[in-house]
Amino acid sequence: MKIIVDSSQVVTPSGGRQKGLALGSLSLIPQGEVAIEDGRIYAVGQKGELVGRFPGAERISAGGNAVVPGFVDPHTHLIFAGDRAVEFEMRLQGKTYMEIMAAGGGILSTLKATRAASVEELVSQAWERAHTAFRFGTTTMEAKTGYGLDIETELKMLEAIIQLNEEGPLEIVPTYMGAHAIPPEYAGNPDGYTRFLVETALPETRLWWQARVPGASLPFVDVFCEKDVFELAQTEAILTAAKALGFPLKLHADEFENLGGAALAARLGAFSADHLVKTSPADIQALADSETVAVSLPGTPFGLGQQEYSPARAIIAAGGCLALASDLNPGTTWNESMQFIQALACRAMKLTPAEALAASTINAAAALGMEDRLGSIEVGKQADLLILRVRDYRMLAYRYGTNLVSQVIKKGVVHPVG
Amino acid sequence: MKIIVDSSQVVTPSGGRQKGLALGSLSLIPQGEVAIEDGRIYAVGQKGELVGRFPGAERISAGGNAVVPGFVDPHTHLIFAGDRAVEFEMRLQGKTYMEIMAAGGGILSTLKATRAASVEELVSQAWERAHTAFRFGTTTMEAKTGYGLDIETELKMLEAIIQLNEEGPLEIVPTYMGAHAIPPEYAGNPDGYTRFLVETALPETRLWWQARVPGASLPFVDVFCEKDVFELAQTEAILTAAKALGFPLKLHADEFENLGGAALAARLGAFSADHLVKTSPADIQALADSETVAVSLPGTPFGLGQQEYSPARAIIAAGGCLALASDLNPGTTWNESMQFIQALACRAMKLTPAEALAASTINAAAALGMEDRLGSIEVGKQADLLILRVRDYRMLAYRYGTNLVSQVIKKGVVHPVG
Repeated sequence: MKIIVDSSQVVTPSGGRQKGLALGSLSLIPQGEVAIEDGRIYAVGQKGELVGRFPGAERISAGGNAVVPGFVDPHTHLIFAGDRAVEFEMRLQGKTYMEIMAAGGGILSTLKATRAASVEELVSQAWERAHTAFRFGTTTMEAKTGYGLDIETELKMLEAIIQLNEEGPLEIVPTYMGAHAIPPEYAGNPDGYTRFLVETALPETRLWWQARVPGASLPFVDVFCEKDVFELAQTEAILTAAKALGFPLKLHADEFENLGGAALAARLGAFSADHLVKTSPADIQALADSETVAVSLPGTPFGLGQQEYSPARAIIAAGGCLALASDLNPGTTWNESMQFIQALACRAMKLTPAEALAASTINAAAALGMEDRLGSIEVGKQADLLILRVRDYRMLAYRYGTNLVSQVIKKGVVHPVG
Repeated sequence: MKIIVDSSQVVTPSGGRQKGLALGSLSLIPQGEVAIEDGRIYAVGQKGELVGRFPGAERISAGGNAVVPGFVDPHTHLIFAGDRAVEFEMRLQGKTYMEIMAAGGGILSTLKATRAASVEELVSQAWERAHTAFRFGTTTMEAKTGYGLDIETELKMLEAIIQLNEEGPLEIVPTYMGAHAIPPEYAGNPDGYTRFLVETALPETRLWWQARVPGASLPFVDVFCEKDVFELAQTEAILTAAKALGFPLKLHADEFENLGGAALAARLGAFSADHLVKTSPADIQALADSETVAVSLPGTPFGLGQQEYSPARAIIAAGGCLALASDLNPGTTWNESMQFIQALACRAMKLTPAEALAASTINAAAALGMEDRLGSIEVGKQADLLILRVRDYRMLAYRYGTNLVSQVIKKGVVHPVG
């Protein structure tokens, strides 16, 4: 037994996912204590209560600072090789999309580097990013494939995710995203690539996964539903086939145009619809009326220097279940910090600090179907917590750009990071 | 003698401040080496060159990563007591300025806390922020008074700056800013407070300073030139009096309205004019034609969730000397990281990574009149350098939200921070 003592406050959502205006209802115990046993939360109490009940327990001092749940980042492209710093610079120099493509930029440059990388190289490059995210408070992270777009590379990416997850301490949740883009082999033939995914890639991925990690849940399947990539009909074909094979679903929807992806995600029972910048009021309502979590990725417009963000307040007003994620990726937003995402969400989408925290913990866990195990400091849940180096959790939104976490506790194990 | 070896690149501006389109002209030595002796840069060379010349020197490995100059942050309000997290939250909840004031928010709340704090408390609270900035790569930082607005508290803030600077390793450059706001004692009487500053506070501050740190340069004097605070005539009266007393000048200009502050700063030979959001084309040209550095503070509109930033490209096009700073303060932008400021400047003001780096090093040093000693990796300069944990300096702008610095070298002393 370990007990976190000397906190300024223990702050957490409680009672499951938070829909609509319930977002941001937090329980706050001033100077609270948290007891941990066998990697789970054993008790939460007032100052002195738990050290009184368990006098022999090991004590972990919070140093007079706040304790919050570990952040869950439910949307990342953690696994990739190389970088696109040159492309970033060219864009700032005013080069056009075509000039960048001609210089070897864009997603195809990451595709090329990722296809050429070994599993060991992918693990090594992603480990540094995963470790960075962990130091900034992310205790569970989703990670997508999608820079291979052929069976061999996509499975290599899944293998890298499996190995990174085994290595820990960051817990990594896999998503298969063969439908991230149209690969060069199918250029101009999205229907052909859709057929390949439905008839070959999805079934083969399922077989490979079941042989590689017997008994494990299948990864999520995600599709990039945008004009000139996967249109709505193709998206529906892929997701329907994935669902029939037993895969849980996610969907990239409405980042650049509204094709109706959010409503499709709701209709198919996807765990989340993500991006949601151009989502229409009707689709916001369809999402809100479903169990599908609305995942906003404010780092993406920020990373691109754009002004338009998800209509978060409309999603909340409609009764939706809003979550935040980083969208960490080499093209549009290379940022590992969910602290920054919270600070940005408050400024760009007018969330309150409490809403941003709930959207980065319990609702982010809900976007992964893991809200029963993760996302709050409640008895029986996995002991994933952060000890901050500030006294007030609202500093996570107010004070930005640096690292306010001093200790990350993952499955009950304490990792000093500050 | 120490030599930095095993770099991927040594990247630096050279040849002094960079005006206009010269901004961002960097010298880049692939796998370069840097020799350091007595806290200064002794030599810069190609791979193998310096270890060949000085075989007995201690070696500092850059681990295959980039080496850049230490960041200079030429505009901060580092010294203050308390925080304004509650005010931040109220603003996001849609509370009006008057409601926030009624709840005890605004600059007067920081004034109250700072007046009540001891020097030791001010030093202790500011030390944590200074240390955070240092870990994120800031090796020299300007710090202003201005949360006292009476002689006693303003001198207490100067005393805190002196003590923090003596403590190191961060070098702190003082600015006296009695003219930060109109104190409650002079509410509705800005002319009365202006007379107090000119006739009493400035001369007394000068005498105190000369007795406290004999032989040291006088601090900068800065004025918040905005409508309903210090109008142009009051600003000119204060700056003219300060100049006559031998103080070097700075000016907060055009953050919310254009009162002509930038042109005044240029005319009076101020070292910098800062903020510059509403600056007119004529005033941009007046600045560009002067020796006054144009300091942009993109963290401030970002922190406030606003969309309008300094017209950085117009300042560059006019031939101005553009620098970046954090504006670290408890009201509008509590961020210590000049890495984030560079990443933000590229996205919000369309600087290139090279321009952002030069604006955060040599030109930031110029804004403090310290370009002969700081801001570049050149022979004879102070050995203030950063060893990154990435191979390409452009990652400082491209990859954001975390800390890409692994070792900070200040006056030749190596501080591991990653």
